[in-house]
Amino acid sequence: VADLLRPQVLGGTFPAGVLPDERFLAIELACSRNAVREALDLLRGEGLIDRLPGVGTVVTSEKFPHGLNRLAGLAEELREHGEISNEVRAASIVLATGPVAARLGLERGARVVYLERLRRLNGFPLSLDLTYLTLDVGEPLLSLDLAARDVFGLIEQVTGQRLGTADLTIEAVNADAHSAAMLEVPLGSALLMAERCSHLADGRPVDLEFIRFRGDRLRMRVQLPRGEGR
Amino acid sequence: VADLLRPQVLGGTFPAGVLPDERFLAIELACSRNAVREALDLLRGEGLIDRLPGVGTVVTSEKFPHGLNRLAGLAEELREHGEISNEVRAASIVLATGPVAARLGLERGARVVYLERLRRLNGFPLSLDLTYLTLDVGEPLLSLDLAARDVFGLIEQVTGQRLGTADLTIEAVNADAHSAAMLEVPLGSALLMAERCSHLADGRPVDLEFIRFRGDRLRMRVQLPRGEGR
Repeated sequence: VADLLRPQVLGGTFPAGVLPDERFLAIELACSRNAVREALDLLRGEGLIDRLPGVGTVVTSEKFPHGLNRLAGLAEELREHGEISNEVRAASIVLATGPVAARLGLERGARVVYLERLRRLNGFPLSLDLTYLTLDVGEPLLSLDLAARDVFGLIEQVTGQRLGTADLTIEAVNADAHSAAMLEVPLGSALLMAERCSHLADGRPVDLEFIRFRGDRLRMRVQLPRGEGR
Repeated sequence: VADLLRPQVLGGTFPAGVLPDERFLAIELACSRNAVREALDLLRGEGLIDRLPGVGTVVTSEKFPHGLNRLAGLAEELREHGEISNEVRAASIVLATGPVAARLGLERGARVVYLERLRRLNGFPLSLDLTYLTLDVGEPLLSLDLAARDVFGLIEQVTGQRLGTADLTIEAVNADAHSAAMLEVPLGSALLMAERCSHLADGRPVDLEFIRFRGDRLRMRVQLPRGEGR
C-alpha cells in the first residue's frame, strides 16, 4: 500500500497536497483502513507526509527526478524544480590516494583538486558531494564561482572541451554520522550514493565524484531500451 | 576513507578477500590509523567486511553490478555472478487498484496477475519483487516455471513479441519490517528500490514491478553520454 501511495505523494497527485481520508484511500486501494494507516505511518517515517491537526494528512516533501539518460550536472538537471545552491565547504589541492589516483589515471600522490560541497535545492539540503579533479582541470576552477555554477559547465569552460561520457555507479547506503549531520537527516537514513567518473571528450578521466543524495529528496529516472545479445 | 575502501572491498581488489592491516591502509590512504579504524567500523556496519580472530579483516559480501544501459532481467544481468533462484510467494489474479491500473493503462478494478517473488543469488536473498502483469500476458505465465526463469523471457515467449522499453525509477529507502524480514537485513537497512514499467515492442505497458534490492548486495552501473540541449 505504501509503494502505491508513494508515487502519488511524490508525483503531486493530491490537490493542494492534502491526502484523501483513510476511508477513501482504503476503498481506492482495495485494502483495509488498518493497512492504509500503517502505510501512512511508513510514509510519515520517510518524511514524505505529515499529519496536521485540523487539516489532515499533507505532503511535506517532494522527491526530485534526476534523469540518467545523459550526463548532466545537478543544477542543469533540476533547473525546472528550483534553484540549486552550493555551499563550498572545502576547495583545495590535496595528494591523491591510491584509489583516487587509479580512477583518474594518475600516479599515487599526484596533486589533485578536492572539493566538498553541500548542495541545496530551494534552500533544503539535497546532497553532499566530494569531488576530485585532475590538477590541470581543477586548479583554474578554484578561482571561479563554484557556489553558483555546476562543475561540469566550469570544466567545459576551462578546458574548451565538451565532456564525453561518465561511468556512474548507484547504491543505497545508510547515512553515517557526518553525512547525516550535513544533510540534516536521522543517522542511518537511506541515502542514494552515486560514484561518477566523468571523462573529457578525448576520453581522459578528469572528475571523480562521490555524491550522497538524501533518499527522501531525490529519485533517479531512466528509460531503458531492450538490448540485443541476451 | 570508507568511500575509498568500499569500491576496493566490493571490487575484489584484496587478495583472498583479506584486507591489509590498518597501518598499511593508513599509509596507502594517507590518513590516520584512527580514520582507517572508523572507516572499517562503518564498512563492518554495512555488512561488507568482518573481523576474524587470527585472520584479520575479511570481505564478507560482494555487491553485484546491475547494468542500466539496457532492459534486462535480473537473471540475465547477473548470470556471470552466479545462479538466481526465485521463491514464488504469491502468484494469483487480483483486482488492480487505481495506481496500478493507471500505470498499466487499464480500468481500475481490472483483473491483473500479481506475483511476489523473493530472489536469491547463490542462495542469499537479493531482492523482493512485487509484479503486476496485464491479464493477457500474465495469465499464461501462471502455468510456467516462474521459479527458474526471468519474467522478461517468459513474457517474450508468451506474447511472441520482444519487449520494448522500460521506464525505471530508482530510489533509496529504509527497509520496513516486512522487507527486512524477507531480505534478512536489520530493520531500517538501506534498500535500493526500483519501480520499473516495461512495455511490449508495440508500446503497450504490460509489466509493472516494485523491486527492493538489498543495498549491501547490489549496485547499479550505467555509462552516460553527455547529451545536447543544456
